[in-house]
Amino acid sequence: MKLTKDTNILIVGLGLLGGSYAMALTKKGYRVNALTRSQSSIDYALEQGIIAEGKTGVDPKMIGEADLIVFSIYPRVLIEWMEENHSLIRPGTILTDVTGVKGYTVYRVQELLPEGAEFISAHPMAGRECLGVKNATDEIFKNANYLVVPTESNTEEAITLCEELGRELGFARISRISVDKHDEMIAFLSQLTHAIAVTLMCCNDSPELVNYTGDSFRDLTRIAKIDDGMWNELFMCNRDELSRQMDIFSETFEKMRRALKEGDTTTMRQMMRTSTERRKLFDKPKNNEQ
Amino acid sequence: MKLTKDTNILIVGLGLLGGSYAMALTKKGYRVNALTRSQSSIDYALEQGIIAEGKTGVDPKMIGEADLIVFSIYPRVLIEWMEENHSLIRPGTILTDVTGVKGYTVYRVQELLPEGAEFISAHPMAGRECLGVKNATDEIFKNANYLVVPTESNTEEAITLCEELGRELGFARISRISVDKHDEMIAFLSQLTHAIAVTLMCCNDSPELVNYTGDSFRDLTRIAKIDDGMWNELFMCNRDELSRQMDIFSETFEKMRRALKEGDTTTMRQMMRTSTERRKLFDKPKNNEQ
Repeated sequence: MKLTKDTNILIVGLGLLGGSYAMALTKKGYRVNALTRSQSSIDYALEQGIIAEGKTGVDPKMIGEADLIVFSIYPRVLIEWMEENHSLIRPGTILTDVTGVKGYTVYRVQELLPEGAEFISAHPMAGRECLGVKNATDEIFKNANYLVVPTESNTEEAITLCEELGRELGFARISRISVDKHDEMIAFLSQLTHAIAVTLMCCNDSPELVNYTGDSFRDLTRIAKIDDGMWNELFMCNRDELSRQMDIFSETFEKMRRALKEGDTTTMRQMMRTSTERRKLFDKPKNNEQ
Repeated sequence: MKLTKDTNILIVGLGLLGGSYAMALTKKGYRVNALTRSQSSIDYALEQGIIAEGKTGVDPKMIGEADLIVFSIYPRVLIEWMEENHSLIRPGTILTDVTGVKGYTVYRVQELLPEGAEFISAHPMAGRECLGVKNATDEIFKNANYLVVPTESNTEEAITLCEELGRELGFARISRISVDKHDEMIAFLSQLTHAIAVTLMCCNDSPELVNYTGDSFRDLTRIAKIDDGMWNELFMCNRDELSRQMDIFSETFEKMRRALKEGDTTTMRQMMRTSTERRKLFDKPKNNEQ
């Protein structure tokens, strides 16, 4: 299968990411349908013209007619959905997802596939601090990374299709990564950073903080407004790897804490210089940057 | 003394902050002179029209003629400057600063004042990731906090003048805070956040990170490009308070780490909800926000 303007795309879960996918793909001329829990999300998406048709719950006809299904739902919900509805999927259908943890989901979903269908996992590294289809926008894909996470059971054809989907959505960089490497990276880059931001907010309950704060604290805690249902699930579904990354962070933080207490400015300055050198690699031009 | 357009202002240290002060105050119609180490900084500031006159090193006439002196130099350099040059300061002069640590500097500077001069300390909570007068801009004061940090030896007149200076510079919020409270807050809001950002960058040396990273890691490490000379000095000059804040952070992080390892989702979700509630208080309208 190749991605063409005749490809019938079904989004399962019309939230922030699902809605942003729908918006980007409809703009590109694809036919996009959606299944989601709430009628108001469907009504909004129809009003905005970002989906062709939408249904609440499960619609066997819509599922059977889809060439490409994109799951934009929680990891556990994805597995439950597949357990209940796998028989409705037509052979030849390609399935993908947006899930932030892979080891927990990919193998189980692949086990549940009907003959001739293929699940190729992806992780679009884009988001906002707000949820729901009403906050959807394809702007979040610009300058963002899109990871394709194949397993041994994936075909080159499906992997290429998934990469093409990332390009059509407008992502800046598209990479392939293994399931294990993905979960390690994501534990470090995303889950650990959220754990740190939440920890920072839990350290101090002074209501005056807001009067004194500068941009550094604001930046470090932007992601501290967190959907506790979703993030608890992401943490628990990647528990071993996140624990390992938290251990590494604790040890490294302890090294700096000890250096400060002992007045070991050589170690402190060395860490600061290492940090500065490494962080320079991350600078990238952004549309809205001066 | 009141701040009027006849007030003769002297900036000591024409870097990013000193230059931004010079720009904002010159635009408002004040006469601004500058003393700094490098002739090229003075040449640039004269070319840009953000200072009236500038000299390298120490200029007794310029110091003697100043009504208001703003120190925009490192904490230890400020104390050395006062030790060497206090006799050049005319009685009646008001002095202020931009230093990020207060207990270490304020009392010592106040001891060194000549009769009739007054030092009222301030901390403009504004900055950029880049240094030097060539990156100066009064834009950094918009939406930022300006802290006035009086001691018992300050007069209400000087405190009011310092607050007026913050308003003239264009700060969004101006607050008074005690020296101890300042150093505690700054240890938490600024120094701890820099320690965390540096630690994060020191945890992982994979050159591939940049291909996989999302905005959360970028945000948490924006401040990880750090001038190790300046920050080592800020850390060491506020060592006790920063150590205490690092201890609190470590304990709170350990609480989350334990909850994850034990599968105690109640504690994890409670921390996430506390974080979300507290962080909501920090949202503020910004000029460039959607």
